[in-house]
Amino acid sequence: MDRTEVTKKIVSVKVKKGMKWETIAKKYDASKEWVVAALLGQMQMTKKQAEITGKIFGLTDEEVAWLQIVPYKGSLPTAVPTDPLIYRWYEIVNVYGTTIKELIHEEFGDGIMSAIDFSMDIQREADPKGDRVNVVLSGKFLSYKTY
Amino acid sequence: MDRTEVTKKIVSVKVKKGMKWETIAKKYDASKEWVVAALLGQMQMTKKQAEITGKIFGLTDEEVAWLQIVPYKGSLPTAVPTDPLIYRWYEIVNVYGTTIKELIHEEFGDGIMSAIDFSMDIQREADPKGDRVNVVLSGKFLSYKTY
Amino acid sequence: MDRTEVTKKIVSVKVKKGMKWETIAKKYDASKEWVVAALLGQMQMTKKQAEITGKIFGLTDEEVAWLQIVPYKGSLPTAVPTDPLIYRWYEIVNVYGTTIKELIHEEFGDGIMSAIDFSMDIQREADPKGDRVNVVLSGKFLSYKTY
Amino acid sequence: MDRTEVTKKIVSVKVKKGMKWETIAKKYDASKEWVVAALLGQMQMTKKQAEITGKIFGLTDEEVAWLQIVPYKGSLPTAVPTDPLIYRWYEIVNVYGTTIKELIHEEFGDGIMSAIDFSMDIQREADPKGDRVNVVLSGKFLSYKTY
Amino acid sequence: MDRTEVTKKIVSVKVKKGMKWETIAKKYDASKEWVVAALLGQMQMTKKQAEITGKIFGLTDEEVAWLQIVPYKGSLPTAVPTDPLIYRWYEIVNVYGTTIKELIHEEFGDGIMSAIDFSMDIQREADPKGDRVNVVLSGKFLSYKTY
Amino acid sequence: MDRTEVTKKIVSVKVKKGMKWETIAKKYDASKEWVVAALLGQMQMTKKQAEITGKIFGLTDEEVAWLQIVPYKGSLPTAVPTDPLIYRWYEIVNVYGTTIKELIHEEFGDGIMSAIDFSMDIQREADPKGDRVNVVLSGKFLSYKTY
Amino acid sequence: MDRTEVTKKIVSVKVKKGMKWETIAKKYDASKEWVVAALLGQMQMTKKQAEITGKIFGLTDEEVAWLQIVPYKGSLPTAVPTDPLIYRWYEIVNVYGTTIKELIHEEFGDGIMSAIDFSMDIQREADPKGDRVNVVLSGKFLSYKTY
Amino acid sequence: MDRTEVTKKIVSVKVKKGMKWETIAKKYDASKEWVVAALLGQMQMTKKQAEITGKIFGLTDEEVAWLQIVPYKGSLPTAVPTDPLIYRWYEIVNVYGTTIKELIHEEFGDGIMSAIDFSMDIQREADPKGDRVNVVLSGKFLSYKTY
Amino acid sequence: MDRTEVTKKIVSVKVKKGMKWETIAKKYDASKEWVVAALLGQMQMTKKQAEITGKIFGLTDEEVAWLQIVPYKGSLPTAVPTDPLIYRWYEIVNVYGTTIKELIHEEFGDGIMSAIDFSMDIQREADPKGDRVNVVLSGKFLSYKTY
Amino acid sequence: MDRTEVTKKIVSVKVKKGMKWETIAKKYDASKEWVVAALLGQMQMTKKQAEITGKIFGLTDEEVAWLQIVPYKGSLPTAVPTDPLIYRWYEIVNVYGTTIKELIHEEFGDGIMSAIDFSMDIQREADPKGDRVNVVLSGKFLSYKTY
Repeated sequence: MDRTEVTKKIVSVKVKKGMKWETIAKKYDASKEWVVAALLGQMQMTKKQAEITGKIFGLTDEEVAWLQIVPYKGSLPTAVPTDPLIYRWYEIVNVYGTTIKELIHEEFGDGIMSAIDFSMDIQREADPKGDRVNVVLSGKFLSYKTY
Repeated sequence: MDRTEVTKKIVSVKVKKGMKWETIAKKYDASKEWVVAALLGQMQMTKKQAEITGKIFGLTDEEVAWLQIVPYKGSLPTAVPTDPLIYRWYEIVNVYGTTIKELIHEEFGDGIMSAIDFSMDIQREADPKGDRVNVVLSGKFLSYKTY
Repeated sequence: MDRTEVTKKIVSVKVKKGMKWETIAKKYDASKEWVVAALLGQMQMTKKQAEITGKIFGLTDEEVAWLQIVPYKGSLPTAVPTDPLIYRWYEIVNVYGTTIKELIHEEFGDGIMSAIDFSMDIQREADPKGDRVNVVLSGKFLSYKTY
Repeated sequence: MDRTEVTKKIVSVKVKKGMKWETIAKKYDASKEWVVAALLGQMQMTKKQAEITGKIFGLTDEEVAWLQIVPYKGSLPTAVPTDPLIYRWYEIVNVYGTTIKELIHEEFGDGIMSAIDFSMDIQREADPKGDRVNVVLSGKFLSYKTY
Repeated sequence: MDRTEVTKKIVSVKVKKGMKWETIAKKYDASKEWVVAALLGQMQMTKKQAEITGKIFGLTDEEVAWLQIVPYKGSLPTAVPTDPLIYRWYEIVNVYGTTIKELIHEEFGDGIMSAIDFSMDIQREADPKGDRVNVVLSGKFLSYKTY
Repeated sequence: MDRTEVTKKIVSVKVKKGMKWETIAKKYDASKEWVVAALLGQMQMTKKQAEITGKIFGLTDEEVAWLQIVPYKGSLPTAVPTDPLIYRWYEIVNVYGTTIKELIHEEFGDGIMSAIDFSMDIQREADPKGDRVNVVLSGKFLSYKTY
Repeated sequence: MDRTEVTKKIVSVKVKKGMKWETIAKKYDASKEWVVAALLGQMQMTKKQAEITGKIFGLTDEEVAWLQIVPYKGSLPTAVPTDPLIYRWYEIVNVYGTTIKELIHEEFGDGIMSAIDFSMDIQREADPKGDRVNVVLSGKFLSYKTY
Repeated sequence: MDRTEVTKKIVSVKVKKGMKWETIAKKYDASKEWVVAALLGQMQMTKKQAEITGKIFGLTDEEVAWLQIVPYKGSLPTAVPTDPLIYRWYEIVNVYGTTIKELIHEEFGDGIMSAIDFSMDIQREADPKGDRVNVVLSGKFLSYKTY
Repeated sequence: MDRTEVTKKIVSVKVKKGMKWETIAKKYDASKEWVVAALLGQMQMTKKQAEITGKIFGLTDEEVAWLQIVPYKGSLPTAVPTDPLIYRWYEIVNVYGTTIKELIHEEFGDGIMSAIDFSMDIQREADPKGDRVNVVLSGKFLSYKTY
Repeated sequence: MDRTEVTKKIVSVKVKKGMKWETIAKKYDASKEWVVAALLGQMQMTKKQAEITGKIFGLTDEEVAWLQIVPYKGSLPTAVPTDPLIYRWYEIVNVYGTTIKELIHEEFGDGIMSAIDFSMDIQREADPKGDRVNVVLSGKFLSYKTY
């Protein structure tokens, strides 16, 4: 058994029982974005979070133990994603990548926006011309230093 | 001559003269994010925008004409970016891709967040534990329909 | 269980019973192109469509539930398709890609032809020199805007 | 000198003089789709077509000779295109590829839709909800036979 | 079940029973080249051919049904083949590819040699310096036309 | 200077002067297939062949010297060829590769058909249903032996 | 069942019983290099060799039959090997490849060193500064000829 | 200027003057294998070796300086070599790689055969059935140790 | 059975029983770095080490035998790692690779730092600005020599 | 002009003048590791550092300006490095990657070792059995947090 199998079981139970991520996330003391990432096998859970998960999805003790292990991260099957929704994000990186790089460097100097000390918030914005997906990404700036 | 050479000249003049994107962007009636993307060869300019650009960077008539052509987009030299700042964005797509997909689909149903009817805003957020990069992405939701 | 397994079962039952896509599609209120794409795991079904599918192919309740989940799209096993029929389409993109780009941009300006607000119609055209496949693709034009 | 350089020159002259593909195409006895493909280096021209091209773009005799040679076809710089407009076509092949395969095979049996005995017509369709790009692809069906 | 599993079973039975392709092929009204390609999962069989196959290899009704479906073609596990015999053919394409292209174009003009309306014949030619493999490939020429 | 530049010059002169491979090949004591492969930079020429070439294409002494050096072979720019004519040959290897392997092994045992002690002959075969390209490949069989 | 599974079984039995390749190889009338390559699924065995193998590893009749079939060769899971020992050999090809090419061509003219009519001998050479692995590779030279 | 340009010049002068590697190598106190690898840009030369090289090929002082710098090694343009002679060596790694691994490990335990403390000797062996290329590779064994 | 399955079992037992690498490593006469690498399938164990492992993880005799075999090394599923922790190491190689090369060559001349005669020590260093990971890598220098 | 050209000039001047990194680095107030990385185009310099560099290497004002721009990082030409010294580091990531991951996670929990807030120190350690390269890597630990 490994973490991938636990993820498959979680998703399978969710579909079978017709559960929603939003409802599930409320049982944890965390944002829905973090909870979904964890349930999809990208984050390590604390003992308490893992036990909550165990109850929701009917997991065995070994499966609950796996949730407390740091997983091998990376949720996509190919280097260039084929799914249209996820591809659009890759396209943003491809088309706007150098723009993002220039603007962050001009404001902050040499360094990166952390993808670790990082949070994400996804919201619907009603719009008469068609609703919009609004996403706020917030990452600590980490600068290269001379040593 | 092609658009790539115009982009190289623009970047080269900017470095030579020590200009800043923020100052440059103020001469256009558009956000700094859009202007930088356009100057880095990812967007088509109107005649007026191209002429402004021509003046700022000392471009020839042919170079100004190129700015008004839709470019072959894609600003990165490799499928998986090697630059650490841009890689962190690719990592976000890789680690959080399926999370983003699940949450948008649960809220909106099958479809995508547009990368065309799309805008981006990059800001510094002061934080005593270290300043943060805040990015707001806003894209129209486009749904798959049965036909 | 995941969506891939449901797709495999659908295709397997179809072959076993010698069914035809055209006959199957008539049981839905949608084009044959959309129905086949959905049955091959590329589209999300409504509850009603999923139940029709469940009856046709003898699916379990869990399998019917999976059809109502947005799938991870992408139906080909390799980046460059090996199947000769599908490769010909990839070749069209490769040989005519820049032509398509130039003509659409000249007519519409910068933007894309949507692959989401999109429909497709495949028909046989009788021709004494050998019948032809006629395909009509229709996608909404989405334009890049300055922001 | 090779065909690629002739293509670059043609595109460069077109941008410099602000010409349009549609106006250019009218000077040939062929569809705009074919003419653009040929000018972008994907088709062989007849002597007469090459001479017309030579006049329009001010080419030398050697350049006119190159237009009459069958080119090494393939107009994209990467296996998976990065340009958003062209990517959408690749996405159609990726998402609908198996659907296209199933429907053509059900109608015609084993074989392919030719990408050689092939024509393409790109039109704007006015639509109050946003204009659409309509594309008609027509290819002869070629069947595998037992030998 | 899918076609790949049927192919595996056919090959497995052949090895188990020590059958030869040449003997097998004689039970069909087709060349040994075509029969082997079909049995290896690359061609669609008629009902009659599939039934013959069913008898030879002891297949179930579902397996016999699969043989009458157009398969997803492509018999090699990697883009560049690793098997030395098959690699030599890839090498021929690599080393002689442009030669083949030049000579066919000089003789026929722009177009391709069909890989669909195509047949192949493989024979041993005795030779005192070491026997030779002689292969005759015959494909219809299909020409690009102006439209 | 390297061999690639000599090849480019040869092809460029040929296009400029409107020469034909067939006429060129007659000036050598070898098949047109071999001569074209050599002129396209895939074969080593003898001193005499190189001098003939020098006269036909107006080469310098250094260029003539390069023709007598064994070249780094491989004439295609990508692992999977994009040119439709050459791709059809790759497709033959892909679709029929395992068939070719099985039939040659059944006839000859373990080993390969040489791509070195190899010749090729390309001919037009008139056919009322459309002329055909006939290609005869002949390669010595080399067997693996126990040592 | 296919050859890969037979290879896995052979390796598994060897580990289970703690056998050595050298002892195993002595039961055949062939070099240890050839025997190991054959047992690892790269060579075709004669009936007698296969039967010996059947006895040593306790194989079924079908497994013994598989050993007499020419395998799909290629023993590595990736194009660039990850195993350090095997990578060093790939590195030798990478670093010394053009050297090997130049020296063999200078001595023999255009052609190749056969990898089919080929043998290999691996020996330990005692050396006070650290023992050495000595490998002798011997392959027939096959020359390209004009045809 | 970089080392690659020096290598190109060396090879170009060699072709122009019709020199032979064997004759060149005799002017150094080293094997022909090592000298050719160094001249092809894979090895660092001492001051004395670089000066000898400068005289033979008419190099400038800067070019002679480059020969004394450790180069970025790797002499092949693609991960899988296209040149038939070099490919045969890659094929040996591919087909015999696991065999080599097993035999070296059985003799020496865990570790590698060095590609650094390594030498190579290439010789012609006359043989009535066709001359053979004999290559002796000798590399120090380096063992993994517990620490 | 192969080594990969033994590795999976070891990791699975460790998770199930909630064991720690540090505690496990103390039962061996080796560093924790080496023990973990060995347990993750990258190193060959001695008979004694394998038996200790068998007791800790409840392995069968065959599984204990596998631990004494040299494994096919390489612990990552993709050429560019997707896991953020491991990617950072790959990034170090990518960004600092040429720096490392220049400094080692300047100090030692041409050669490499061994990855075989190599050890690694990973420690936590307390730091008020955030604890640090300190890693010491020590590898024997192996120099290229003229032969 | 871009940063790559400045890097080439710096390296070229260094070779021409026979300078040493160690001597060069002493003119800056930073470690030799940082200075070399900056001179090889991986780090942004301050105005003062850039001016020092300009004097050492005789750079123009524009070149000095480029050194103060954040570069597009990534110093290797291929995803898997071909140079043996750099490959050994990639091999360490490949073989020990999961070991490093397990040990850091066990000590610190989920997160990464920073490659930005990072320093490196490369030293020679004399050793009678052959000198060793000792490298100390020190990176801040950054932990994933629930949000």
